[in-house]
Amino acid sequence: MTDLPVRQIGQVSSVLADRADAPRQPDEGAPDAWLVLDPAYAAALDGISPGDDLVVVTWLDRADRGILAVHPRGDLSRPVTGVFATRSPDRPNPIGLHRCRVLAVTGARLTVSGLEAVDGTPVVDVKIALGDVGDR
Amino acid sequence: MTDLPVRQIGQVSSVLADRADAPRQPDEGAPDAWLVLDPAYAAALDGISPGDDLVVVTWLDRADRGILAVHPRGDLSRPVTGVFATRSPDRPNPIGLHRCRVLAVTGARLTVSGLEAVDGTPVVDVKIALGDVGDR
Repeated sequence: MTDLPVRQIGQVSSVLADRADAPRQPDEGAPDAWLVLDPAYAAALDGISPGDDLVVVTWLDRADRGILAVHPRGDLSRPVTGVFATRSPDRPNPIGLHRCRVLAVTGARLTVSGLEAVDGTPVVDVKIALGDVGDR
Repeated sequence: MTDLPVRQIGQVSSVLADRADAPRQPDEGAPDAWLVLDPAYAAALDGISPGDDLVVVTWLDRADRGILAVHPRGDLSRPVTGVFATRSPDRPNPIGLHRCRVLAVTGARLTVSGLEAVDGTPVVDVKIALGDVGDR
């Protein structure tokens, strides 16, 4: 299977310095953080406002891509499970999905609440979170 | 910004032959389909069973990566909006997120319900969908 040409579009700026500090999910105590995008993509943010919910897609560059199975949440009392049956960052393609809320938009920089990715994590995509079918 | 080394891990097998046939979201009439993974990743599926809800991450290889703004859902009556404020497949990194349910697991092949990606779409990641904090 071949490599796919995924481009970094920006990065996370956060007080979280490394994986040991980071909560496992955004609703488990993640801090506010910034998405600093390349200004070339500013036009793609047009229409995003404070209060919007996003799904931010990152590349978890500190993950171990060789791991296929883990104890879920690092809990040794839980049986070893395939990484696709978990949310472990250690997996063949360490893509992170982060649901967070927009607090501010300044040019190509977004302030968001509750992002559990560490400082410097590459950002690859930003998507508005989907509401009900009728609201699309 | 640099390219990121994302590897294809499998592909979608579907009756949907091209974008014109595909619904916009999985809950808008998408058919059952198959995720055919490279057998090298079979161990990463261990623990996935029929009835589980997944988030499948794809690379929408037929998208136009040069588009930064669109009429949402192709509706010309809606104002042009930045692609990050929409779910358009046309965006700088055309990453698809698809929530679907597992119907069967056979080796490295999953049958899933409600997948709106077209036949041959590269798969890059599979994640169990998250339930409530207490169920993780």
